[in-house]
Amino acid sequence: MAKVLMGAQTFIYPMPVLLVGANVDGKPNFMAVAWGGIANGVPPMISLAIRPQRYTFKGIKENMAFSVNIPSSDMVKEADYCGIVSGANVNKVEVCQFKVFYGKVENAPLIEQCPVNLECKVVHILGLGSNSLVIGTIEEAHVSDTCLTDGKPDVTKIKPLSYVTSPARQYQVLGEIIADAFSAGAELRARE
Amino acid sequence: MAKVLMGAQTFIYPMPVLLVGANVDGKPNFMAVAWGGIANGVPPMISLAIRPQRYTFKGIKENMAFSVNIPSSDMVKEADYCGIVSGANVNKVEVCQFKVFYGKVENAPLIEQCPVNLECKVVHILGLGSNSLVIGTIEEAHVSDTCLTDGKPDVTKIKPLSYVTSPARQYQVLGEIIADAFSAGAELRARE
Repeated sequence: MAKVLMGAQTFIYPMPVLLVGANVDGKPNFMAVAWGGIANGVPPMISLAIRPQRYTFKGIKENMAFSVNIPSSDMVKEADYCGIVSGANVNKVEVCQFKVFYGKVENAPLIEQCPVNLECKVVHILGLGSNSLVIGTIEEAHVSDTCLTDGKPDVTKIKPLSYVTSPARQYQVLGEIIADAFSAGAELRARE
Repeated sequence: MAKVLMGAQTFIYPMPVLLVGANVDGKPNFMAVAWGGIANGVPPMISLAIRPQRYTFKGIKENMAFSVNIPSSDMVKEADYCGIVSGANVNKVEVCQFKVFYGKVENAPLIEQCPVNLECKVVHILGLGSNSLVIGTIEEAHVSDTCLTDGKPDVTKIKPLSYVTSPARQYQVLGEIIADAFSAGAELRARE
């Protein structure tokens, strides 16, 4: 197996599809973000790499609050639409027919149709180059009751999307569960 | 669809399975990280949330360099093993039979068997609480020639793992491609 040098590239697989919400000039708007991940455990934090020109970024800075909404695979058109157009030009909430609700964090608009919603408060905004890394605490998580199993979120019911850039830019669902974590590798301990 | 409040939780789906490498006291070691994502576009950067007690973290700080290696689904045991044990106690490279090579970033050990390898230099380490957010530039990407299609990385050949915590902690492969990005949502423009 030979290796091919590809240059400095953002090759991470899989990436999530997140609908990040903020109130901009008092109105809820949502953008699609794939460049995000958990940033801290205690307290729970999330990081999102957002271009500062983005309309939603204006609302995040204004209010130092945002939401993260996880669309299920049956919302792929709406999720994609939120990544195609700018809230500066269209009302995405109307076009996507999102039902918006709020939790305890002011100005963090949540999408009813998304099975998972996180309410977040900004703790850092780090200018890194083309993007600003927005780091926020997760203040509350909402999960649709239809996506719980024994009171816990169930990914087979949530049906999240993965954004993949290779070979084409595409959305994939999750597939087979192939192993239990913190267990599958235990047999290698015999080699220690 | 009613919503259930779950408290402050790190509910993001899917998360990647990354084997993060560093030289610790001159020897390569690898840890499993699910809390990571792209942090910037130009220049390309990645962020990883790592507990500072971790053995690999010592090497990252020592050298201000690290690697990110993406295991394919046939490496699930090795990937899991790297998340179960500490390099302070065992030589994970030996146990996992990793072939280690280096690129242009000194002290960023790369795993030959992983189809994608990123060489990274640390630019920020942000203490956020239980974890430190390590932000690094991606200096070079290596991709196995068997995982390319028309010269581009092909996720159907890379077969990356996803780490999912709900309802159990498990590894999943990616499933069906359900839509083209920047295209699937275009039909909603008719509603604008």
